[in-house]
Amino acid sequence: MIPFAKRMEYMAGSATVIKNLFKAMGDPETISFGGGAPARETLPAKQLAQICSELFSSEEYGARMLQYGHPEGEKELREVVSEYLLRPKGVKAEPDEIMIVNGGLETMNLMCQVFIDPGDVILVEEPTFVHCVEIFEMFEARCVAVHTDDDGIDPVDVEAKIKQYHPKFVYVIPTFQNPSGRTLSLERRKKLAELGTKYDVIILEDDPYRDIRFEGEEIPPIKSFDSSGNTVLANSFSKIFSAGARLGYVNAAPEILEKLYNAKTATNSQTNTTLQLICAEFFRRGLFEELLSKTRALYRQRRDVMLECIDRFFPEGTKRTTPQGGLFVWVELPEGYDTTELLKKAGEYKVAFIAGEAFFTDGGGKGKNCMRLSFGNVPPENIRIGMERLGKLLASEK
Amino acid sequence: MIPFAKRMEYMAGSATVIKNLFKAMGDPETISFGGGAPARETLPAKQLAQICSELFSSEEYGARMLQYGHPEGEKELREVVSEYLLRPKGVKAEPDEIMIVNGGLETMNLMCQVFIDPGDVILVEEPTFVHCVEIFEMFEARCVAVHTDDDGIDPVDVEAKIKQYHPKFVYVIPTFQNPSGRTLSLERRKKLAELGTKYDVIILEDDPYRDIRFEGEEIPPIKSFDSSGNTVLANSFSKIFSAGARLGYVNAAPEILEKLYNAKTATNSQTNTTLQLICAEFFRRGLFEELLSKTRALYRQRRDVMLECIDRFFPEGTKRTTPQGGLFVWVELPEGYDTTELLKKAGEYKVAFIAGEAFFTDGGGKGKNCMRLSFGNVPPENIRIGMERLGKLLASEK
Repeated sequence: MIPFAKRMEYMAGSATVIKNLFKAMGDPETISFGGGAPARETLPAKQLAQICSELFSSEEYGARMLQYGHPEGEKELREVVSEYLLRPKGVKAEPDEIMIVNGGLETMNLMCQVFIDPGDVILVEEPTFVHCVEIFEMFEARCVAVHTDDDGIDPVDVEAKIKQYHPKFVYVIPTFQNPSGRTLSLERRKKLAELGTKYDVIILEDDPYRDIRFEGEEIPPIKSFDSSGNTVLANSFSKIFSAGARLGYVNAAPEILEKLYNAKTATNSQTNTTLQLICAEFFRRGLFEELLSKTRALYRQRRDVMLECIDRFFPEGTKRTTPQGGLFVWVELPEGYDTTELLKKAGEYKVAFIAGEAFFTDGGGKGKNCMRLSFGNVPPENIRIGMERLGKLLASEK
Repeated sequence: MIPFAKRMEYMAGSATVIKNLFKAMGDPETISFGGGAPARETLPAKQLAQICSELFSSEEYGARMLQYGHPEGEKELREVVSEYLLRPKGVKAEPDEIMIVNGGLETMNLMCQVFIDPGDVILVEEPTFVHCVEIFEMFEARCVAVHTDDDGIDPVDVEAKIKQYHPKFVYVIPTFQNPSGRTLSLERRKKLAELGTKYDVIILEDDPYRDIRFEGEEIPPIKSFDSSGNTVLANSFSKIFSAGARLGYVNAAPEILEKLYNAKTATNSQTNTTLQLICAEFFRRGLFEELLSKTRALYRQRRDVMLECIDRFFPEGTKRTTPQGGLFVWVELPEGYDTTELLKKAGEYKVAFIAGEAFFTDGGGKGKNCMRLSFGNVPPENIRIGMERLGKLLASEK
């Protein structure tokens, strides 16, 4: 047997969580609140039928769509990111300060390639996104959890832990956080950007849910308060265009972007030219705003139904978040429930969720009575049925 | 300044080569024999206009094209790989022994994630593909060059160097090698597979040009002689469907594939669903064979023109390979020429190539009088003009 690299030992746990998740999503009778998939109804298939037909037939684009492009991404899409997605949010980024990647997660991988040596510390929210923890583990980083509350990650604890652990990154999902659905307050955003500058630490801002706000006021990205270039903004087209297209982008200071460019060429050369040009054309035809309004209205309704069902079907003493956007509700059941154990029985009840423990990096049974529920890709009538099933599952336990 | 990871120090050299290459490809007046891009005429844009229009409009595929898929790749495309691309070559691989990746190079990155610790040795051909060396360097592997001749990599030297260096991989491009255009003989393929088994070393077979054979007899992949699962077959759709689509695949033993799957989810979750389904449909409609005949005829003509031009315009004493397929001719100029120096003047002559030195990992000025010429994406009339320019550049030196 040829020995595997050392880094493979570190990632066994979270890889299994993700694999089981994909398995549960495969059973058509199960109503899954597990994955973070966008609503089927928000995917612009009809519009792309038209756009693809035109672009592939055109003299200007036809062959270019299928030829090698540029490691930093196609100019058209970098312009779209700059004009449609960053400028309106208060982030001034020229197209050449942006790189296109294969989905939002790839940025975390590339940032690790560029910055993480084995043993380096990354501060993460508690709870945080399990899939990113998997990436950090593969690079043999040590994740240290930071205290969070209803306003998001706590800057006082961030500063204390920067001093104690000298981390390379503070990884934060500021808006409609995964898994909690919570949003980082304006004041804390400013404070985080300042801490990045003061202590020379990367604030790695992962913001894929930002545009799906259906309630409350928009808050500018942390990056908009960055004076030193130490905040790196990662984002994705998965929730606002297509998850299957695997398109994302990163905005970073030139000296970081240059290294990301090297890591990108040594990972997969470039993101595919085809979908970049299709996506850019979708925005340039003015189709984004309409899709976004539709998307927001649809998720708002689903969230409302889910919150109503939690209040109705879940046991007394259950706590839950009230997300103003995004796809996730975080549920804290009364003490004594063990969602990891519950999940083993969930198959019988034809319902799925993610058990809370997976989102905690420190172990010790934290999050044992918690679960993440995604209302994104479940129609309202199925949310009702699925949540009633979940209620029965919970009732069977006590 | 936040310190970069140690691995970033190792990749500066080859990253620069690749960056300059992209730059040269950008000037429209320059005739570039530099990149390995497929011929514009072989890209099936018209067919994809039709396929995309139908798939995006269909009830079955529309939303699925834009939704999350599977980390191992979509079943349809893995079936295509198994039936159309591997079985006819003598490689029996079920769809679940195949993983889809973002272009052929991503397999090398994932294989390094899975197997390479800093300091591990990888045996490579001399010369070898510069872009893969960049990847190996990022993982802090040590590349050791193995002797090659007109029949490809020399198994006697491979065995000697396995004993001496205990490498993790032998990285080999067996068919119409990049950069030399040479093909590994049948006997040597068998021998390499045996060495992988005997010494428990991965034979990493990278075979993207295999199908573009326009002369001579087909030779089965090394993988077809693998009895232990120690040969890993990496391939790409870049030269037979679309380079811009960034689709590739890997066929490996289950225990390796499982780790590759973990590395893939921690790199970018999955390859985009959209282009996988489009590509699968292209094959399923029987469009591949026709495209392939057209492609072979077109490259054959371009090779012929290029060889003729070398013999006509290049100085006496020039040696060249006679590739039976693929995209590349390897040229060895008489002693005294320095192609790295020549390249600096090539801009004036509006012509580009890759200087030989880049393809040698041992340094010491090897390949100084060599160059790689790609005839792939240059129409015959431009090959003539560009090669005459190159001839003048060479004449100016002596």
